This record gives sequence, C-alpha cells and structure tokens, in this order.
Amino acid sequence: MLAKPDNLIIVIFGASGDLTNRKLIPALFELYKQELMPENFAIVGTARSQLSQKDFHSRLKNGVSNPDIVAKTEEFLEHVYYLQLDPGVLNGYHELKSELSILAEKHKSRGNYIFYLSTPPSVYGIIAENLALAGLSAEDNQGWKRIIIEKPFGIDYSSAKSLNNHLLKFFNERQLYRIDHYLGKETVQNLLVTRFSNGIFEPLWNRNFIHHVEITAAESIGVEDRGSYYDHSGALRDMIQNHLLQVAALVAMEPPSSMDDWAIRNETLKVFQSLRHFPVNELDKYVIRGQYTKSHIKGKLAKGYREESNVDPESRTETFAAIKFYIDNWRWGDVPFYIRTGKRLPTRVSEVVIHFKSTPHRLFVENQEFCNTGNQLVIRIQPDEGILLKFGMKVPGTGFNVKNVNMDFRYKDLGNGRLPDAYERLLLDCMQGDATLYARGDAVDAAWNFVQPILDYWKNHPEAPLFGYPAGSWGPDVADDFIEGKNINWRYPCKNLADDGVFCEL
Amino acid sequence: MLAKPDNLIIVIFGASGDLTNRKLIPALFELYKQELMPENFAIVGTARSQLSQKDFHSRLKNGVSNPDIVAKTEEFLEHVYYLQLDPGVLNGYHELKSELSILAEKHKSRGNYIFYLSTPPSVYGIIAENLALAGLSAEDNQGWKRIIIEKPFGIDYSSAKSLNNHLLKFFNERQLYRIDHYLGKETVQNLLVTRFSNGIFEPLWNRNFIHHVEITAAESIGVEDRGSYYDHSGALRDMIQNHLLQVAALVAMEPPSSMDDWAIRNETLKVFQSLRHFPVNELDKYVIRGQYTKSHIKGKLAKGYREESNVDPESRTETFAAIKFYIDNWRWGDVPFYIRTGKRLPTRVSEVVIHFKSTPHRLFVENQEFCNTGNQLVIRIQPDEGILLKFGMKVPGTGFNVKNVNMDFRYKDLGNGRLPDAYERLLLDCMQGDATLYARGDAVDAAWNFVQPILDYWKNHPEAPLFGYPAGSWGPDVADDFIEGKNINWRYPCKNLADDGVFCEL
Repeated sequence: MLAKPDNLIIVIFGASGDLTNRKLIPALFELYKQELMPENFAIVGTARSQLSQKDFHSRLKNGVSNPDIVAKTEEFLEHVYYLQLDPGVLNGYHELKSELSILAEKHKSRGNYIFYLSTPPSVYGIIAENLALAGLSAEDNQGWKRIIIEKPFGIDYSSAKSLNNHLLKFFNERQLYRIDHYLGKETVQNLLVTRFSNGIFEPLWNRNFIHHVEITAAESIGVEDRGSYYDHSGALRDMIQNHLLQVAALVAMEPPSSMDDWAIRNETLKVFQSLRHFPVNELDKYVIRGQYTKSHIKGKLAKGYREESNVDPESRTETFAAIKFYIDNWRWGDVPFYIRTGKRLPTRVSEVVIHFKSTPHRLFVENQEFCNTGNQLVIRIQPDEGILLKFGMKVPGTGFNVKNVNMDFRYKDLGNGRLPDAYERLLLDCMQGDATLYARGDAVDAAWNFVQPILDYWKNHPEAPLFGYPAGSWGPDVADDFIEGKNINWRYPCKNLADDGVFCEL
Repeated sequence: MLAKPDNLIIVIFGASGDLTNRKLIPALFELYKQELMPENFAIVGTARSQLSQKDFHSRLKNGVSNPDIVAKTEEFLEHVYYLQLDPGVLNGYHELKSELSILAEKHKSRGNYIFYLSTPPSVYGIIAENLALAGLSAEDNQGWKRIIIEKPFGIDYSSAKSLNNHLLKFFNERQLYRIDHYLGKETVQNLLVTRFSNGIFEPLWNRNFIHHVEITAAESIGVEDRGSYYDHSGALRDMIQNHLLQVAALVAMEPPSSMDDWAIRNETLKVFQSLRHFPVNELDKYVIRGQYTKSHIKGKLAKGYREESNVDPESRTETFAAIKFYIDNWRWGDVPFYIRTGKRLPTRVSEVVIHFKSTPHRLFVENQEFCNTGNQLVIRIQPDEGILLKFGMKVPGTGFNVKNVNMDFRYKDLGNGRLPDAYERLLLDCMQGDATLYARGDAVDAAWNFVQPILDYWKNHPEAPLFGYPAGSWGPDVADDFIEGKNINWRYPCKNLADDGVFCEL
C-alpha cells in the first residue's frame, strides 16, 4: 500500500454538472471511507450557478447518501465548499486564490492544488490561462499544482494540438493530467501486469506467434440523452481516438524500463509513432462506419439513430466504427490490429483478444472443426472482468480428438469485493503525482494525427459508405470481410439480438 | 470416431486371477456396452484352475453385475469361454489352437488373436515360446496376432533385456504390446494434445523458458496386501522405471512427425537415449530413498512399512524415491527434472508441474511474496484431472500489486461423463493395432539401463541412506534440499497428515 497523499485542496470547475455529482464526489467519498484521502484536505466546487454551501451539499448527498453512513457523509461534507465563479472572468480567480489561502491554512494543505476541469471543453483554455494569471499555476516550495482535464481533448488533430500548446504556456507537461477513464479500469491496468509479471506471455507476444489482435468495445445502449454531443462526435472520436488506441498501446508496447509514469508513457508514444499511416486513397479497406437503424429487440421496437432526440434526421454520424491497422516495428511488423466499437450492439462488452497463430504442423487432423483455430487469450475489460485462455485439449475417449476449451480466471474470484471505480483510481493517482494512467500530450497529438485522415475523408466525402445495421446486431456485415485469413471473423461474445430475440450470454 | 476393430479372439492367460476379474473383463464389457467391440468376437480365459464355463462366468459377474444390465451381461458372456491350460505345457497349446479354430469359425474372427499375459512374469517367456511352437504367433493373410504383456517387464536391465530377446525370437516387435496402464490414462495422453495442438506452449517448452520440471505420483495407501511383491520391488522399480519415466518422455519429447505409434515411440526412445547417466560415485546427490514409519494419521495409528504383512521386518526396500536428472539435448540442456513417488504420503495425486523461469526484469517490486515465483503449468493426472496455470495478476486497488492466481480447466467440465478406464483405452488400441500407449522394447531397455546404476548401488551398499518418514508425511525432508534454486521446493498439494491431523485439500 502506498503512503497517503499530501494534504491538498481539490478545486472542481463545473461543479454544478452531472459528472461532479455522479462520479467525482462519490469517488472522493469512497476514497475517504477507505481512508485513502490525505490526513486533511478540502474540496472546492466552483460553477457559474449561484448556490449556497448548503444547496451544494444537499445536491451531493443524492450521490453519496445511504442511511448507514449519514454520519460519515456529514463528516466528509465538512471538507466540501462551494464558490460561485465564472470561468471566463479573471477577477473571480483572485477571489478564488484568497479563499484557497484561507482554506489551505485551515486544512494544513500548504500550496498543493488539484484543479479538476469538469467543464465544457471550450473553456479549458481560459481556465488554465486565468489560473496562471492569478498566480495559481506555478509550483514552488509551498506546494504542487496539478490540472486534470476531462475528455474530449480536442475534436481533431489541430484543435488538440492548439489546446496542448495553449495549456503548455501556463502549465508544464508534468502538471497536466489528461483524463481517460478507460485507463482507470482495473482490467486495463491489469494488461500491464499480465504482460510483464508473467514470464510465459512476453516470449509469445510478437509477430512470430500472434496472428492478429482484436479490440472490441460494444455498448448495448444507444445515444440516450447525449444526442446533441454525440451527433458532432461519433464513434471514432468518442471511443477509438482516445480509449481504444490507449488500450492498443498497452497491448503493443515494449516493456518499460520501470513502472514509472514517464517510462510507461514513453512506450505508449513509441507505439503511436509506429502506427502505419492509412493509405488515403484506399481508406474503405481499413475503416468501416455504420449507423444503427430501427429494429425490434426481443420484440420491443428500438429507435434508429436518426430518430433519437437531438440528432439530425439526416445525420451521417457513425455509431459504429471498425478500423484495421498495423504497427510498423520489429515486434508487430504485418500483424493486423482490429478495433471495433459501436452503440446498440447486442451486449455491453469490452475485451482484447490476442489471436495466436495455429500450430505449424497439424498433428491432430481427425477433428476438422479444430483445424482453423489458434489459441486465444481473451482479456475481458468489462463486464465480468477476467482473463480467459482458449486452448485445445483431448476429448476423453478413443483416438486423439481435440476440442477447444476455456481456462479462465475471473477477477471477482480474487474475493477482495468491489473493484474500485475508474475515477477513484485516477483521482488517487493524481493526488500521488502518478500520471501513468493519464494521457500525455505528445501521445494525444499522435493519436489524433493517426485518425485525422479518416475524419478528413468523411468530411470531404459525405457520400462515403455509411452502413446501416439494425439496432441489436453486431454492426454492418462488411466488418467481417475486413479480417484477414480464411474462416476468421470477429469474436461474437453474444449473438444478434435484433429481430430474432435470442437471449444474450457472454 | 475410429472404425470398429476387426473381429477377433482375445485369449487371456491367468484368467483366474484378480486382474482379469477386476479390470480386464469390466473394461471389455464397458467397450461392449459402448459398442466399441468388434461386430463379433470371443474372449477365452485360460488358467491352471479347473473351472467350468459356468463357474468362470459367475466369477466374472461379480465384476460387472448390475441389476439394470443383467440382460446385457448375459449377452456379453455368450462371447466368453474358459479353457483349462497349464502355460508351461506345450500340449495344451495344440488343444488351444483347435479350440480357437472352432471359435474363429463361430465368431467369424478369422485368424485375429490378442494374447493377454496376465500371469506371473516368470511364465511370460514360456507362453510366448509355446504359442509360437503351436503355430499361434505367425501373422499371415488369415489374420494378425498380438501379445499383451503385463507389468513388471523385467526386474532389472539384464532380465528385461533377456525377456525382450526371448520374446523377439517368437514375435516381432510390432506384435508386442508391453502394457503401461499409466499411459492409458486420459490426462497422460492429453500431455501430447496439450503440447502439440496449442501454438502457445511449444515456443516456451525448452531450456530458455523452463526452470525445472517436477513429476509427482503420490499414494496415500501403504503396500496393503502386496507386501510380498513390493518388498522385492520398491518404488523405483514399481513406479519410476516404467510409468514416471514414460510420463517424463511425453513431457520432454520433440514433436513427432505424426501421431503414428512408431513415430511417437521413436521420440520417447530419443529422450531415454539422451538421459544423462547418474554419476555413480555421487548418487546420493541425485537419488533419495525413504521408507514409511509408524505414525498417527488423524489420530489413528498407521503401521510402519516393516510391520506390514509379508514384509521383511528388517527390509531396506524403499517406499519413497526421488530422483533428479538431466536430459542432454538441445531442448533440455541443464534443466533439472525431478521425479518423486511414494506410498503413505498425505494424499493420492499424480501431476506434472512445469516451472517456468521468472521474468528477466522485475517491474513489480512492491510485492516481495511474488518475487520468487515463476509461472507454473500444473497438469493433473489424477484425481480431478485437469490443467492449471499459475500466473500473476493485479490486485484490485491502488498501485500495481501482483498476486499469483490460478486459471484452471477441469477435465470433468468437458461434460462427457466418465473418463474411460486405462484398460479400456489400452485394450481398444491393441485391437486397432495402435501401440502408441504401449512401451516399445528399445525404450524399456533404455529406461532400465538408466536406473540400473541406482539398483546396483543400493544392492552393493545396503548401508546407503534409507530415510524414515512418518506415514502420512511428504517423505524425507532431505528431498527438499535436492531442488536447485533459492526458496524452491517441491509442490505440496496437501499438507502433512501425520500427527497433526490437518485436513487434506488438493
């Protein structure tokens, strides 16, 4: 167990928003209950809304209340303050600064601050600038200053690049914590442990033994109430550019020199720098986009994407995207990587599947079914976190018939109870100054640079294919043609739900 | 599924004995129920005893009877005959031959015969000789002849060698089926499937990635009523020379060119030919023997070996033996192999453990407990047949704490119900002419040749250490010093039972 973080003050911008209420405060309260918060601390919510401290507290109670822990909640809320602040107006920051000085005195937190930007992305820049102008960015022997920036970080390569440049005028890279809640998930972190604490995987983890790598993040829900955001984003920006490319980097990276955050992120960057550029005149062979259409799921009518609220009825935004790419380095030369994500798919599942090559010599030819399958290592990120190895064993009885079976480990069998929420892990890491699970600026730039040709192509060729798929199915059929190799398709953890009403089992 | 075997007659020598009653007939009956026996067949029991067919049948019914299947039993027994025969007297074989001709006519079995030698080893030679003299050994276009020889095959190198030479005067090697019921076990066969149907194991299966290999066959029972046999045999002859060296060969062999019996046994032989000879003047460093002594197991007095019936009260026969050896070839150079077997150990378990090397760089140093353990692949032969991989995973929560967990597959989860008994598999294989799971003469010779220096040493130095161990413990403590490497011991699937009454769990 690590030492407790230094005393500090966490300042949340956009504290009247949903994320604060639903995620940040519950995560901080959870850390508090587990005695992982510093000895002393303060949390200061700020937003444009005029709220009394009491109003703010009663909002937060909705997120954390539980009759058994009323006393604990009250105790926690004694550390929580509210300050009205318009993020665009410098004056307020001077006021903030003097408030913080008083609280720092009270909570013995010296000059240690985390600024959490849970605001619309449009004000990230001005907040950073105003913090700096008010003298709240510079680290000195009075304490450290860190700034956590929520997703999305830019909407394309140039916007991300200018945001980075802007932030770096006021904070240095080691102060910047670009959040990717996906990296806060236990099983994503476990990718590193699985790879580098076991002697048996690393020797196999390369082009000699791996046929291809498949990464899936499927959601069964549609856009819900996020139509107005999503219709300007789409699956590529929303999931692939950030979360899934980061996951791919953890799968593909070289062993870092240490578990130090800078060392690990050096390796992430190297992976991104080695991504083979998409051939712009053949993009259709490497990228597929789709959009869900009206269908029946288990007999119930499911809306098509264009019928969702706040979505353009002629929208060409993709709710499904699949890409195929290569990493041009010694380890991965010519090994295809496939990433797929979508909304309104048959189930909610995120997993990485390492498809190993078949044996070079087929000794057991009796069983044709077995012939086309190599070993698979499935790393399930959610739900039912765990790891599963598919391998061949002898079918009891005469001869040498081989059958694929599963050897699996479920994270919940570790028996330590609940897995910490991603935000708990990320907030605690930031308090401890560990940025391993945050994206570094150069990597974010590189990831945007990689997907930019696709964004450009879709923008300049709105007529480029956008495949419809019935809500509750696994996306456009053409996504299967994508995968190289005879009789090899995506893994389907769950059959189609659309129209046929098949019950879904992982 | 393989085709049904040719019609045939199985002649059992020593048919009045326990093995016939308890194992052979039940195995044949089981194959019959599963419709794996040939279309038509006969089983002829022979022994010195004067028995009527009816007497013989009623003996056998004890082994197979079950109220639900009386009709099936009767139907099966219509194929079963008895003939009195003194194996040492040639005349009887002429009579046998004419009886067999009549039965062959009746059961349409042409000249296909299996002769099963379930007699004391002393008459193996004369039976083979008399069969040949009576014209029952030569294969012609009328049918094939096969001879199954029970264990033990010789009591040392020279006796095994002369038995082989003798048999080969009358039968050729491809007619000889030297039984090793261990090789008939599903999980032993599965060793081949595990290794050669999975692309992920073979690249790791060598000196670069394997630290050492451990093979254990533990019995919780003592010698029971086999004292007079066992006191002249001992653990080395009874288990290691035959069963466990064969298992080691399956673990260590190169991939065969095909699953053909001759090809596989070529590879077994190569392993035996590569065994590094024991240094005769340092044998104590490579071999440990022990004998169980009186103790209390769960509060109950357990006899010492020397108090068992038909055991010399001053016996120096080993009931526990452990050996350490090397296979001098490119794959295994300097990788220690450890074999351990014993009676009156805390539990009944047979398993192979592949101990992989630790990672070359310890990235996760937070957890000291984890530091000294590499991955382990445990192949459980009995009971609870299956395969288990020990590997490191992240402990949920902060930091990167690593814990060893198990990923396992249990054979019974295949859900095909019971695993076939070893004798079923072996008898069926012999009927089909597949000798994969039988020991070839050259390999038997080589295995005896390997252990002979130990036998000689013990014979010539009766004062050589024989360590006592309390019945219900894991054998002499010195066996631990044996294992190379810091903090590395044998795997103990179950704690000591002796004296402390600890409940045994696998």
